[in-house]
Amino acid sequence: MKFCSACGHKVQLEIPDNDDRERHVCGGCKAIHYSNPKIIVGCLPVWNNQILLCKRAIEPRFGKWTLPAGFMENQETTAQGAARETWEEARARVKDLSLYYLFDVPAIDQVYLFYLCELEAGEFGVGPESLECRLFSESEIPWDELAFPVVIETLKTYFSDAAQGKGFPMRVDTVIRRSKRE
Amino acid sequence: MKFCSACGHKVQLEIPDNDDRERHVCGGCKAIHYSNPKIIVGCLPVWNNQILLCKRAIEPRFGKWTLPAGFMENQETTAQGAARETWEEARARVKDLSLYYLFDVPAIDQVYLFYLCELEAGEFGVGPESLECRLFSESEIPWDELAFPVVIETLKTYFSDAAQGKGFPMRVDTVIRRSKRE
Repeated sequence: MKFCSACGHKVQLEIPDNDDRERHVCGGCKAIHYSNPKIIVGCLPVWNNQILLCKRAIEPRFGKWTLPAGFMENQETTAQGAARETWEEARARVKDLSLYYLFDVPAIDQVYLFYLCELEAGEFGVGPESLECRLFSESEIPWDELAFPVVIETLKTYFSDAAQGKGFPMRVDTVIRRSKRE
Repeated sequence: MKFCSACGHKVQLEIPDNDDRERHVCGGCKAIHYSNPKIIVGCLPVWNNQILLCKRAIEPRFGKWTLPAGFMENQETTAQGAARETWEEARARVKDLSLYYLFDVPAIDQVYLFYLCELEAGEFGVGPESLECRLFSESEIPWDELAFPVVIETLKTYFSDAAQGKGFPMRVDTVIRRSKRE
């Protein structure tokens, strides 16, 4: 950030009164501009013991497989956002959404929320951000071709829970990775 | 937002290519500026069946009682943020944090996350954003003087869970309120 989004004047980094960290502060109108973590919402859509994955048609990780997920938008709930992303990426409707996994990824200022859900009628297509969408049984999951650590961890945990047959308790975990600032 | 934070040129609302909603787009450098929901992290600190609440020294809801909570910062996890806010508002250290409640508040583009936790050694003080901090047993909770619906709901659910003695399962709920845009 170089300019104030309210008045167009240059901003500088400084610690405002009654604060304890640097913010972008406008040299003109004195507005303080905060930067906060973003939420990524996604689904783990299940149909007959198979999981719906999308092959990414966009960077990063072009050509790798992922769970349908993306940035949460204003004016929606986390579950609505997860369902929206599933429609956008896989042209699939989902039901019975239950929060399954929260991943903190502090190095990149993101929080992931994955909802376990059922694919409506087993139907799906291919959205514009996907090259291909497909249902995978556990033995078919392309483990070496998955896009993100959070996808690997969510799928591993799901199949472990399914094998144990004691339900799908909600998990919280942190992904440690190199900071984008390094 | 009126000006581009990257180049200082005026922005306008338009729907970018391959998008489905209006964003602030710079008329100069063409940067797209996204606005996304913010996360509020907080704690439900327990000590000997009592809950630590803070009397707000700031607006909104000056003088009302609340659970320690505030905006999640970059480079921290949700649990770290919840613990940080508890230190800032009540000068209290907490342990054994367990995610207890997620509230979607789509009307104001916020997601609340409350962690159930134990107050370290029962010790606390008063942070600069609080007029007073105090431990309350269930019968002492000032129900008519609580600051926010999410605080009321979290406390009600906690005491209900405690009475049933079957643990504290994680909840997801949506707060319906008038939009700030209306």
